[in-house]
Amino acid sequence: MPSHRSAPGENLRINGARLWNSLMEMAKIGPGVAGGNNRQTLTDEDSAGRHLFKDWCEAQGCSMGLDQMGNMFARREGTDPDALPVYVGSHLDTQPTGGKYDGVLGVLAGLEVIRTLNDLGIKTKHPIVVTNWTNEEGTRYAPPMLSSGVFGGQHTQDWAYALEDADGLKFGDELARIGWRGDEEVGARKMHAFFELHIEQGPILEAEGREIGVVTHGQGLSWTQITLTGRDSHTGSTPMPMRKDAGLGMARVLEKVNEIALSHAPHAVGAAGHIDVYPNSRNVIPGRVVFTVDLRSPDLAVIEDMEARLKAEARAIADDMGLEVAFEKVGGFDPVTFDEGCVSAVRDAAERLGYSHMNLISGAGHDACWINGVAPTAMIMCPCVDGLSHNEAEEISPEWAAAGTDVLFHAVVETAEIVG
Amino acid sequence: MPSHRSAPGENLRINGARLWNSLMEMAKIGPGVAGGNNRQTLTDEDSAGRHLFKDWCEAQGCSMGLDQMGNMFARREGTDPDALPVYVGSHLDTQPTGGKYDGVLGVLAGLEVIRTLNDLGIKTKHPIVVTNWTNEEGTRYAPPMLSSGVFGGQHTQDWAYALEDADGLKFGDELARIGWRGDEEVGARKMHAFFELHIEQGPILEAEGREIGVVTHGQGLSWTQITLTGRDSHTGSTPMPMRKDAGLGMARVLEKVNEIALSHAPHAVGAAGHIDVYPNSRNVIPGRVVFTVDLRSPDLAVIEDMEARLKAEARAIADDMGLEVAFEKVGGFDPVTFDEGCVSAVRDAAERLGYSHMNLISGAGHDACWINGVAPTAMIMCPCVDGLSHNEAEEISPEWAAAGTDVLFHAVVETAEIVG
Repeated sequence: MPSHRSAPGENLRINGARLWNSLMEMAKIGPGVAGGNNRQTLTDEDSAGRHLFKDWCEAQGCSMGLDQMGNMFARREGTDPDALPVYVGSHLDTQPTGGKYDGVLGVLAGLEVIRTLNDLGIKTKHPIVVTNWTNEEGTRYAPPMLSSGVFGGQHTQDWAYALEDADGLKFGDELARIGWRGDEEVGARKMHAFFELHIEQGPILEAEGREIGVVTHGQGLSWTQITLTGRDSHTGSTPMPMRKDAGLGMARVLEKVNEIALSHAPHAVGAAGHIDVYPNSRNVIPGRVVFTVDLRSPDLAVIEDMEARLKAEARAIADDMGLEVAFEKVGGFDPVTFDEGCVSAVRDAAERLGYSHMNLISGAGHDACWINGVAPTAMIMCPCVDGLSHNEAEEISPEWAAAGTDVLFHAVVETAEIVG
Repeated sequence: MPSHRSAPGENLRINGARLWNSLMEMAKIGPGVAGGNNRQTLTDEDSAGRHLFKDWCEAQGCSMGLDQMGNMFARREGTDPDALPVYVGSHLDTQPTGGKYDGVLGVLAGLEVIRTLNDLGIKTKHPIVVTNWTNEEGTRYAPPMLSSGVFGGQHTQDWAYALEDADGLKFGDELARIGWRGDEEVGARKMHAFFELHIEQGPILEAEGREIGVVTHGQGLSWTQITLTGRDSHTGSTPMPMRKDAGLGMARVLEKVNEIALSHAPHAVGAAGHIDVYPNSRNVIPGRVVFTVDLRSPDLAVIEDMEARLKAEARAIADDMGLEVAFEKVGGFDPVTFDEGCVSAVRDAAERLGYSHMNLISGAGHDACWINGVAPTAMIMCPCVDGLSHNEAEEISPEWAAAGTDVLFHAVVETAEIVG
């Protein structure tokens, strides 16, 4: 756990206008069709975004490291040659119809921390390293948080290299093609701490009127793909008692998913975002429905309970209706408890700076969730309008961005320890 | 209502082996990929099937009429020049992955009636005309029963000609291209009666162990497309009380559809075969679901009641969940009551021939439903294995085909009146 002996004074703030300008400059690379961004991982646009970030970092006197997963590490030296660096960052890649802030804010806020330190001539004992993690989004190459996952020992690099996109292009080949496959061993770096600022991607902070979310936990996730199989038959000529309607079975399971999540209020959530009905014809009773139930909680025991109840309820519904049911676990990760010291540094910074704040549980996965396994980690969240994200209409205010970055600055600099 | 003075003797039967051979010959044209047929309307395969049917009819001494919708009329003369013909038939077109019997049985059974009359040297007072109705399936050009619908005054010919398939090819142009656009005015023919033999496309006859379904009614249909609109949001970072989950709303409506149909047991049915979820991503709560509710009953008042209750229930669910709801009627037809005299002719024939039989309500639409509006009409059904249809695995037994055709033969010949 890092020490926090040397907090910056409450008058020290980052330059919000410069941060915002950089966000807008980065957003010009890989523009979307509706005001957002399409800068998917390992595309030419991703490469262009990386070059811009590298140029900005080098202009601040940073050296740029690059590992074999394309993770970028811009380093500002500390005064103690033996002190491990404090890391800060997020990701520059976007969804195909993504926003300008998801990930990008966390990287450019890290850059703004360094720019502000340079402005003020402040030295820190620990080096500070700003990171751009490759392929956080996972849209072109599933799963999300791929390269922070390799860094954190969740996946092997060989497995990641062999992943293929929809056109059959391999991750490793595309990383080399865009010129960002480095030599450095992945995960070899040791960290004093890691901080990630991210937009909330949810509605809580805005609804509660708070500027800062102090992220204490990351929700664990369970994705269960359920296949209900009945019998395709004519919607007109099949009497009600002779039907095996997989669509109706799916409907009953969805109601149970809702009940199960609500039974663990307020933190557990559950829904099905993915539903495919076969043959999906107006006059054919669905013979098969494939859908994925997403269950989340910050408590592993709750996730396990919800998963077990989901299967039992789905099986009972299927038995009652003469359907067959099959389950496949298609995704999951355990809940994350962020480092107490790093979380306190974030809360203390918000308090010192006079920003309204509240504890949050991150509902989405983030690079910080994997890094938390190998280094003391915390996250800061800022509000986003209507909780909207993964959408070109994603929006935040310059004030929110500045407040989040101020808190990041204070937490990072305190952890890196101001010298003299 | 036709008279039934001259029933054939109970010893008179059609030639089941010849009928079966013709079914198998026709199935060689436009074979499917899995043992069934792909002989969609207005394709080269459709044209080839028509030529084979025409050759067979002309070999029996029939003349072939052709109207401007491509409906074919093979006529065996009667002895009374003033007597209106008894019509019999169905359709030769198939689904893209269709079976060998849906429609085809009714046309070739009509041919077998004529072949048997010729074998036996039987003359009838009324001419007998075997019909192939163009585009019953409605897959390439919606709606189904298109050309019997134009014949019956349900649609205009100009509207039908302007329909486009998925490639933008117009119905009228394709009909001319394959060489089957005739000169005859559509619907000008007057009928003494119309009989259609069809496979059940449902499981009742097989489950009840009956050889013959005496179709007394055709179910009416109402298709309501419902759009529920909530808000796309992250499955992890959106608290349960802040969700507007259109998928869960759809689930609740589906349960109501089931309840509403069961409240009008045993004849009413209801289900949703078509369900599209947006954006259909595992980690996004569905912001929009579009689905079509299919409600059917032989009683128009019941259909109207079900439709009204569906809308009221869906609106209540949407209001409760903060969703928006919109309704669009995307299809419908009124229930059909077949002609009492024609239905009796079918029941009497089954009785006379010693076949087990029961009354049926047709759950699916058929050409006979439209012709019933312009001529005394009845339908005969024979079982199909597992009620399976619109599927290449559709199957019937030669015995079922022969029994249905025997009943058709007796009903038609009685109605056409054997002469001396």
